[in-house]
Amino acid sequence: MTIQDTMISMGRQAREASRIMAALGTGEKNAALQAIAEAIDGARAAIAEANAKDLAAGRDNGLDAALLDRLELTQSRIDGMIEGLQQVAALPDPVGEISDMSYRPSGIQVGKMRVPLGVIGIIYESRPNVTAEAASLCLKSGNAAILRGGSEAIHSNQAIADCIRQGLAKVGLPETAVQVVATTDRAAVGALITMPEYVDVVVPRGGKGLIERISRDATVTVIKHLDGICHVYLDDDAAADKALAIAVNAKTHRYGTCNTMETLLVAESRAAELLPPIAEQMRAKGVELRGCEQSRAIVSDMLAATDEDWSTEYLAPILAVKVVAGLDEAIAHINQWSSQHTDAIVTENYTKSRRFLREVDSSSVMVNASTRFADGFEYGLGAEIGISTDKIHARGPVGLEGLTSQKYIVLGDGHIRQ
Amino acid sequence: MTIQDTMISMGRQAREASRIMAALGTGEKNAALQAIAEAIDGARAAIAEANAKDLAAGRDNGLDAALLDRLELTQSRIDGMIEGLQQVAALPDPVGEISDMSYRPSGIQVGKMRVPLGVIGIIYESRPNVTAEAASLCLKSGNAAILRGGSEAIHSNQAIADCIRQGLAKVGLPETAVQVVATTDRAAVGALITMPEYVDVVVPRGGKGLIERISRDATVTVIKHLDGICHVYLDDDAAADKALAIAVNAKTHRYGTCNTMETLLVAESRAAELLPPIAEQMRAKGVELRGCEQSRAIVSDMLAATDEDWSTEYLAPILAVKVVAGLDEAIAHINQWSSQHTDAIVTENYTKSRRFLREVDSSSVMVNASTRFADGFEYGLGAEIGISTDKIHARGPVGLEGLTSQKYIVLGDGHIRQ
Repeated sequence: MTIQDTMISMGRQAREASRIMAALGTGEKNAALQAIAEAIDGARAAIAEANAKDLAAGRDNGLDAALLDRLELTQSRIDGMIEGLQQVAALPDPVGEISDMSYRPSGIQVGKMRVPLGVIGIIYESRPNVTAEAASLCLKSGNAAILRGGSEAIHSNQAIADCIRQGLAKVGLPETAVQVVATTDRAAVGALITMPEYVDVVVPRGGKGLIERISRDATVTVIKHLDGICHVYLDDDAAADKALAIAVNAKTHRYGTCNTMETLLVAESRAAELLPPIAEQMRAKGVELRGCEQSRAIVSDMLAATDEDWSTEYLAPILAVKVVAGLDEAIAHINQWSSQHTDAIVTENYTKSRRFLREVDSSSVMVNASTRFADGFEYGLGAEIGISTDKIHARGPVGLEGLTSQKYIVLGDGHIRQ
Repeated sequence: MTIQDTMISMGRQAREASRIMAALGTGEKNAALQAIAEAIDGARAAIAEANAKDLAAGRDNGLDAALLDRLELTQSRIDGMIEGLQQVAALPDPVGEISDMSYRPSGIQVGKMRVPLGVIGIIYESRPNVTAEAASLCLKSGNAAILRGGSEAIHSNQAIADCIRQGLAKVGLPETAVQVVATTDRAAVGALITMPEYVDVVVPRGGKGLIERISRDATVTVIKHLDGICHVYLDDDAAADKALAIAVNAKTHRYGTCNTMETLLVAESRAAELLPPIAEQMRAKGVELRGCEQSRAIVSDMLAATDEDWSTEYLAPILAVKVVAGLDEAIAHINQWSSQHTDAIVTENYTKSRRFLREVDSSSVMVNASTRFADGFEYGLGAEIGISTDKIHARGPVGLEGLTSQKYIVLGDGHIRQ
């Protein structure tokens, strides 16, 4: 069988399983999640052994320390997978939720019912715990899943896949409801993203290169998360203490996350007051500052920023700084350079806060809060399969609801159209 | 300039205009709609003249009577365009609507704001009144639009486009907010559906061939409506009068519409009672019946149905009929053969109605109502840009809300992440 054939066969089985998954009750899905958690708990030794193989191969192949760290399944990370499964079991079930049922003049009652998407393909890189996490979200939302992890984690992923199959089988569900691709051949990804008859949506999780490649080649809908070039704008009417706290938190709370601020915008009227203390705190934390001419006139040891800085996701202790005339220029800068992930204003002005919320076209727009809050857990989604920087279907943090859709339901009593 | 260049330039202008449109107030958008309606009213002679050119060309090119009828802009159809614009002006504005604002344990308040998608591409066939209709829906939902009508309606579409430009200019909005492609070259469509940097979503309206071609080639998201193979299932527990009325209405109210029933499923226990009177009424209306073996044993003058009948959208006075064992077989048949447009059950049984609603995976699922109700106006959307048989983003009738998305908004008082 070619890889293409294998993937089509997996797709067909996933499609069949998806019909069973869609009709399941909440209790059945939660029992499956619990059974998978127990299977993982009972297979700690096997998982550790498989993970050791991946780690050894990774070291042989010269993976760097950060990648090896992401790859490692310590006992506490295995605990984390088990807890994650239990947390997803505890989340409300979105499937079957009925809303907006209203009567129409014709006499019919019309509303919407939330339903699973069907089959979700997830493509991810090194972290093998994503296998359990992605499986749990797809399962709870009533979908079937085809998971394709990174080749460097193949043994770990297969060990976790064994546990998922055991858990599904234990509660009488089809093992094909969650399939983990067993080959490391890249052709499997190519097939997965080009079979819309079997796969309803693909969620790539990983570096920008992976996501761009998948978006370009996919014929299946992609829920994608490209970069996070996030801004904080300190308005003329910013409260100084909030401005300082939010700027420092948004940049330095963590450097490698997508909701970290990469560019700080400051209103001209406040730059001389606000930039020096911010620069001082940034300097104390080892953050390199790259500023426009006006900001360098205030804080002289900044490097000169270029257009490339406005469009770079540093994921590092580097911050671009720009002085703007006011709200209009701030919004224009953001709508030109932002990756439409998360942008925040610090202001005490009612009208300007309303304008910023309305006119900034990003998946999360904030007033007087750190961009670091843009996160499924912080938003109360319970879990997150990714953060979408797209506008179609799902925007911002994607939880269980993002893996569902709504159909119309119509209730009548023999109504016919006149 | 090549057509590719022309389209890119239109796309860039649309993207710029979309930022202005997104920030408009409801009153400004309604004023634009009113100004366009007045411009059309004042240009009746010019529109009629342009339409006469298209009709003459159509006759020369041997268009059939049905196509010529769709192409014609009578005075009453021009009235209809004007009323349509006024109706869209009267609809609630979806943009800026804030929902689900709740406080999180961290102290931030999180919710969603409805926002325009950005730039909508609409590709449609012969009916030139779609130009005004599509423009009005895109405008009211705060989007910019690029419209590409059928080549046979090019003069009519351009005359309407003139009115749209006049209306936009009169209220001080950019004329590039609604652009109507002036060339009949097919390369324009190819360009429009492959520039995701300028176009956020494409809505094709027309025959299955057009939609399949666009879906295959598009890199922009497509809200598509393929065929309408709709079913009515008469359950063991159907009330006979409702079964008869709904079956006859769903098939014979109109033959050429996508929400017309194409296959009737009847529970075995009721077939002998229900099929003869239905067949009699269908016969009286000139509907050709094509049945499975069991139904032909009851109504002897039916033709024999083949698998092709289960998968055909007749759009004609033809009905496929199948006797099924009961609810399970009905659902299985529908989930196998339905185009996931609209399917209905007729039953008095509570549990079976709940199962049908939950397990039939179609964009509209109905109990005791005619499939002919699946329509944006009947559902109270006020207007409809199309009916989506997809699951992603929008399902079923797509109104103003389907041309929008939701972003997260976060309100804080200086909150930082711990």
